[in-house]
Amino acid sequence: MSEHFIELNEMFQRTKDGIHNFMNILTPRIENAKDDHERLYYHHIYEEEEQRLDRLNALIPKIEYFLEHNVPKTAENTDFIRLLQDISLEKFGLHNFLEHLDLSLFSFKDTEYAEQLHQMRNITDNDYQSIKGILNDLNQQFDGAASAAGSIPTDEKENVHDNLKIEKYTNTKAEPHSHQPSQPVKENKTLKRLTVGSLKEN
Amino acid sequence: MSEHFIELNEMFQRTKDGIHNFMNILTPRIENAKDDHERLYYHHIYEEEEQRLDRLNALIPKIEYFLEHNVPKTAENTDFIRLLQDISLEKFGLHNFLEHLDLSLFSFKDTEYAEQLHQMRNITDNDYQSIKGILNDLNQQFDGAASAAGSIPTDEKENVHDNLKIEKYTNTKAEPHSHQPSQPVKENKTLKRLTVGSLKEN
Repeated sequence: MSEHFIELNEMFQRTKDGIHNFMNILTPRIENAKDDHERLYYHHIYEEEEQRLDRLNALIPKIEYFLEHNVPKTAENTDFIRLLQDISLEKFGLHNFLEHLDLSLFSFKDTEYAEQLHQMRNITDNDYQSIKGILNDLNQQFDGAASAAGSIPTDEKENVHDNLKIEKYTNTKAEPHSHQPSQPVKENKTLKRLTVGSLKEN
Repeated sequence: MSEHFIELNEMFQRTKDGIHNFMNILTPRIENAKDDHERLYYHHIYEEEEQRLDRLNALIPKIEYFLEHNVPKTAENTDFIRLLQDISLEKFGLHNFLEHLDLSLFSFKDTEYAEQLHQMRNITDNDYQSIKGILNDLNQQFDGAASAAGSIPTDEKENVHDNLKIEKYTNTKAEPHSHQPSQPVKENKTLKRLTVGSLKEN
């Protein structure tokens, strides 16, 4: 499991660089917007990525702590399970970044930034496939506990009609990250215990 | 404090209705988009609000549990503090919804949905001011613990230059929600203890 956390740590550091680069690209668009609509549009994407940066800046030290200390890696350790759930939210965050980059590739396609955005897009796509594989492993290992509400994009939901999805995001498969065969998580006992049930009366 | 949780519960139920209405308005735009760029744009906003809906569907039962049971409301109860932090993330979520609605008011301004979007925008703006006041109170009461990473929008950050902000979001004040004078939170001891420090070695 340490390999997963080393890989996640590297991935989150990499996407932090991506956020900083992306914010730098968006800044002149916000500052030089031709009208209020355009200004709000670029500001809005900037703000969402800055929020993701804030979340990652809080999450990365927790992963590093986990790597450096002998933390119990069990479903009974609620702090550990919450760390897994925070990671699963950053899975959604990477998918969302991919869509921000793809949206930007439309409006920056004839600019000097197109190539850089394209590279960031491909790195993010690879990282997204990797984190999906890692979370599949962790969910198998911890009875579905590493799956927070809000971690699955519309594009991958089974109960959403295809006409609301974007095809290029739906037909990707997670890379294998373990030797065990990938099994869908049917029940989520640990997650349920950690949400409402964990607010115990004392 | 129960009054705050009753108000938050009502607010989150109200914004859930808002999300459903908004998703219904966006659906035909996704289905009938004139090109891939437009389709991705509306899909992307739809997906972000659907994710917010997933988060709220997980959060509301926790608030209801808190209202119905005698849960210890102390800084030592990590489940309670995490609940406050989850609520603070939904403060950002409401700000983000406000920007989604304001963006949509540009592209839907000559449609039958303009009035409905405008009403939703004003309701969301009011709710955002209310949740800011509630979180100010809770942060005073719990030493800044009700303040998760990613809860403060770019528009309200002190270390961000004004040219990256949207003025109409920066000059709003939180409504008072307690009899105590509003004090800035200078230190965040409880939050720190709950992040890295809470992954204790056993």
